[in-house]
Amino acid sequence: MNDLLQLSSLSTAKIQHILDVAELCRQGQFVDSEKGKLVANLFFEPSTRTQYSFNTAEEKLGMKVINFNAQASSMQKGETFYDTVKTFESFGLDALVIRDREDEYYKQLLGRVQIPILNAGDGKKDHPTQSLLDLLTIRQEFGRFEGLKIAIVGDVKYSRVAHTNIEVMQRLGMQCVISGPEEYRDPQYDYINFDQAVQEMDILMLLRVQHERHEQAMSLSRQEYHEKYGLSAERVKRMKDHAIIMHPAPFNRGVEIADEVVECAKSRIFKQINNGVFVRMAVLKWAMEGR
Amino acid sequence: MNDLLQLSSLSTAKIQHILDVAELCRQGQFVDSEKGKLVANLFFEPSTRTQYSFNTAEEKLGMKVINFNAQASSMQKGETFYDTVKTFESFGLDALVIRDREDEYYKQLLGRVQIPILNAGDGKKDHPTQSLLDLLTIRQEFGRFEGLKIAIVGDVKYSRVAHTNIEVMQRLGMQCVISGPEEYRDPQYDYINFDQAVQEMDILMLLRVQHERHEQAMSLSRQEYHEKYGLSAERVKRMKDHAIIMHPAPFNRGVEIADEVVECAKSRIFKQINNGVFVRMAVLKWAMEGR
Amino acid sequence: MNDLLQLSSLSTAKIQHILDVAELCRQGQFVDSEKGKLVANLFFEPSTRTQYSFNTAEEKLGMKVINFNAQASSMQKGETFYDTVKTFESFGLDALVIRDREDEYYKQLLGRVQIPILNAGDGKKDHPTQSLLDLLTIRQEFGRFEGLKIAIVGDVKYSRVAHTNIEVMQRLGMQCVISGPEEYRDPQYDYINFDQAVQEMDILMLLRVQHERHEQAMSLSRQEYHEKYGLSAERVKRMKDHAIIMHPAPFNRGVEIADEVVECAKSRIFKQINNGVFVRMAVLKWAMEGR
Repeated sequence: MNDLLQLSSLSTAKIQHILDVAELCRQGQFVDSEKGKLVANLFFEPSTRTQYSFNTAEEKLGMKVINFNAQASSMQKGETFYDTVKTFESFGLDALVIRDREDEYYKQLLGRVQIPILNAGDGKKDHPTQSLLDLLTIRQEFGRFEGLKIAIVGDVKYSRVAHTNIEVMQRLGMQCVISGPEEYRDPQYDYINFDQAVQEMDILMLLRVQHERHEQAMSLSRQEYHEKYGLSAERVKRMKDHAIIMHPAPFNRGVEIADEVVECAKSRIFKQINNGVFVRMAVLKWAMEGR
Repeated sequence: MNDLLQLSSLSTAKIQHILDVAELCRQGQFVDSEKGKLVANLFFEPSTRTQYSFNTAEEKLGMKVINFNAQASSMQKGETFYDTVKTFESFGLDALVIRDREDEYYKQLLGRVQIPILNAGDGKKDHPTQSLLDLLTIRQEFGRFEGLKIAIVGDVKYSRVAHTNIEVMQRLGMQCVISGPEEYRDPQYDYINFDQAVQEMDILMLLRVQHERHEQAMSLSRQEYHEKYGLSAERVKRMKDHAIIMHPAPFNRGVEIADEVVECAKSRIFKQINNGVFVRMAVLKWAMEGR
Repeated sequence: MNDLLQLSSLSTAKIQHILDVAELCRQGQFVDSEKGKLVANLFFEPSTRTQYSFNTAEEKLGMKVINFNAQASSMQKGETFYDTVKTFESFGLDALVIRDREDEYYKQLLGRVQIPILNAGDGKKDHPTQSLLDLLTIRQEFGRFEGLKIAIVGDVKYSRVAHTNIEVMQRLGMQCVISGPEEYRDPQYDYINFDQAVQEMDILMLLRVQHERHEQAMSLSRQEYHEKYGLSAERVKRMKDHAIIMHPAPFNRGVEIADEVVECAKSRIFKQINNGVFVRMAVLKWAMEGR
């Protein structure tokens, strides 16, 4: 059974294979190739991109889709996360896509749920399909990973995207550094001054300040954040010619990214979103193998 | 690319053509004719009829449907309307159905979103598919538009239905007047006394008092409104033999319409709802042309 | 037209037939057998099992499914239950699945809605598909109903599951008794001491304390409830060899059932949930007959 819980448990060969399948999906292959398979999307945390691009991927594959709405469910009567997941397993579905607030929520399911689980984000820990779509975008752009320099800028400490990405990117031969306010740094990663990063990196990956994961308010105002760590049009001019801008979104226009930079020539933000559908098609196909 | 933003930009010939296609849909044609096309319903304002009749129309056409739930989306993390719409475009969908609180929300999307947008209602401005279903209902009833007399009664000032309808109905040769409380009148339209309208019109189109769009409370009580401008069974008796009652719904029983009038012989209210599915099939087919 | 409103209006022969069809569904028959039929799920009360197992059943049958979200509907503008249901009928659907807070909500629809209604639970009164899945589970286990002894334990007074089950189980020849706190007893049913029930019954059916249906707080603490009426691992040891544990779920672990008992060898709780999909396929097929 093929679960996708953490990217760190997939070999780089397997990851490259998933990206290859995603490319074929982008070229229009595999439409309706999983016809009749049943999948449920269980999002216990708000989501737009991940939730609806999984939904789109499932529809493109021809799957039958059940979309759970926690707000109108028996969780309102006190039902737990585990019992809710177990209920969906009992329906006889072929896979579950799950996002939850809790780090490593899947540990309580291991050995107890007998259908594939695709992790759509767990707390501050992992977000494997986000990393896969980031990798696909980078591979499309540069044709390789080896030697590329990326700075991940901003709320690294609370970001599952950052943690998942740095682990896999280093394995693929990329050089990863972090930047941004001291309060959001994670001491296990190398730090770079933001303006130096702007000039030297192949990829600037900006992160949103995730107020909903913090216990304390940010010490900087939005304006101060933007001045110190925001990617302004002026800073974009100082980036290398071939360098690109990425962001997992949602973004705060005027905070970590200037309004006019979101759709500028160097931005791959909406390209990333587009790739999200294809990598999710690829991981769904992989999860369905042998079913 | 065929957007449907305002009915005022469609010629009467095009409108008649859409109504013709809608009639064919009503006769059972075009089921599964848009198989494999992907569409998302983005409702940023509550809706029953418009939302779920679009959903029904899409299912009848065999489309793959993504239903967005704003309450469990990244809008909870501050993501904007524009970025949400742009995200769904980036998924590679074939069309977006959008309702929003803001008048002319689509202006910020023009030239920036490259897939068809079907306007399912924008603020107090337009509601093109509602007008199309009203027109289909009238054409079925009378076989023509030219010379028909309609009074639109009630909260005209804040009603996108009224504005869209009066513009297109006048173009089609109908005589449109308004009635109802002074506070909701729009001075650009001709006014008629309500009891005179009851006796003289071919069509009485009642509107709901839309408390959610008003800054101030209505000066009349529900009871007073009903006495002065409500369609009671007694008033129905004074309508012309062939005259009909319409209402875009939801309606307030006992305010603008008496409980027993909702399903009376002259009422076309549920017929309108039924026609809503067919006109939405027709506009979806039109939006898909050339894709 | 085949409505499913109360199980009490179905003959035992018809019930056995529905269970036969459900068994065939479990064996993989009837997938996509209702292709093209349109159904809407209207849940006006939170639900996980019933709502999503209906949804799964509909998808397995190949139906086109409309899922209503009351929280983002015109009910927010004051639209009534009746008018909402009537709206969905007007879309031209083939069936409606409805749950509502009100006992016998369907009485106001009788003769006024012309498409099949499948009752997914009405207030404290009925829950026919829950009883059908309970019956299917019992029949799979014991091969018969005649003579089996069941105790329904807990919040009987406010439980639609209890009322529906006792009526049909007695008709099928089962011996039904109730147990649990005095405040939740229904005097029309025979009472048994809980520890006696544990030792003598073929089936122990536990119920959740439904705080949301009570006007007053329970007089027992959770701990007290568990000591007096909770099924602990120790009590399970005193059950008959062949006896089984059932629960309609959601359950309160540590109140009416001990955590470790939920998935123990005697528990059929997740089996019941699995059977829920098959009985719902069967009743949907029955509702579609002749359409």
